[in-house]
Amino acid sequence: MKISELSRRTGVPVASIKYFLRQGLLPAGRATAATAAEYGEEHVQRLRLIKALTTLGGLSIAATRDVLGAVDRAHSAEGALGAVSYALPVPVASLHDADPAEEAEGEAAAGAEVAELLAALDWQAPGTSPHVKALTAALKELRRLDAQYAPEELAAYARLAEQVALLDLERAAGIDDPVSLAERAVVVLAICAPVFELLRRLAQEDQVRRRVAGGGGGGDEYAAPR
Amino acid sequence: MKISELSRRTGVPVASIKYFLRQGLLPAGRATAATAAEYGEEHVQRLRLIKALTTLGGLSIAATRDVLGAVDRAHSAEGALGAVSYALPVPVASLHDADPAEEAEGEAAAGAEVAELLAALDWQAPGTSPHVKALTAALKELRRLDAQYAPEELAAYARLAEQVALLDLERAAGIDDPVSLAERAVVVLAICAPVFELLRRLAQEDQVRRRVAGGGGGGDEYAAPR
Repeated sequence: MKISELSRRTGVPVASIKYFLRQGLLPAGRATAATAAEYGEEHVQRLRLIKALTTLGGLSIAATRDVLGAVDRAHSAEGALGAVSYALPVPVASLHDADPAEEAEGEAAAGAEVAELLAALDWQAPGTSPHVKALTAALKELRRLDAQYAPEELAAYARLAEQVALLDLERAAGIDDPVSLAERAVVVLAICAPVFELLRRLAQEDQVRRRVAGGGGGGDEYAAPR
Repeated sequence: MKISELSRRTGVPVASIKYFLRQGLLPAGRATAATAAEYGEEHVQRLRLIKALTTLGGLSIAATRDVLGAVDRAHSAEGALGAVSYALPVPVASLHDADPAEEAEGEAAAGAEVAELLAALDWQAPGTSPHVKALTAALKELRRLDAQYAPEELAAYARLAEQVALLDLERAAGIDDPVSLAERAVVVLAICAPVFELLRRLAQEDQVRRRVAGGGGGGDEYAAPR
């Protein structure tokens, strides 16, 4: 198909497609003339993935390139989730330096919190895991806000997260082709995270509405700002 | 305290503090001279919140201003979570226009999916809720990627999200002061979402490592890209 048809099929403007081609996110089409190329279904699939990562996933072009690289490099089905998981950006706090003594104390306390959690749940993850590092940074920030979790609170969240992760892996089951599995892993990691967060927000909204209704409130607590 | 002490206490550079003051995110200090002002504990608390929102929460200055506005406007304890919840940005897909017919079909299918879910779980949320709209957009995008949830899959995630939301509300329990409750709501919504996502990723990592270990793999599937 021509680039105009590729644009129509995916809803991505031609100018954006050309940008993704220049950035190396999308492989070149088969040249049919000096200024024309023919694209196939693999371009449609790849472009939909790029669009999903950059819109729903909120990833930058550089981050998208890293994820696509991890997808392309995945050689085994087992490695797909792992490679993608480490390639996808994690929410990390870009902390400024505070009082060095206070900073080190917070780091040590948060690190101990994470180590205690991993031991309590018998989770296998090395200290070099970006997930372990990012969780430590997040818990440190919560401590600074004086909003840290009690150990049993954090463990309760972690047990629910474990059940969510089992559902995630079930969604990837039955796909044997490594590249397809890697792409499914990208979808699960980058796109299903906002879906779960929205479900959580909806559940919060439902519960607040019920409490307000029970207390005789007007239910107008959920009003758009301004 | 002076601005230098405020910077030391919070780890926020003086230039950033001045920027937040100019942007109206941080209330002015008490002027003690033409070029000097005195700051109090309320500035420390507010600055830590701003920092948490903009770093861990990943919010823009404009979004941070909206959230702080919602916090300041909260008059009742019940309203705090609702106001903050609607003020905080939700992950929304910024969709380009695709084939209008295909687009409308996807919208209708995703809308039906959300309506079915809300009915099945008996969740109370109007169609105007930003959470309902964003969830519809996300499910539509998953359909386009041919990675939609089966209804029972989505319901399984939603039931886990409900349990997470109950833990969230427990964390806000026992705080009676509306402003403190609103600030806790910001922390729960903006900062605990990444924490849960990290716990989910850690649980995935643990499960993949176990499967690989069981299959005799080398466990090097989790390797940093490049």
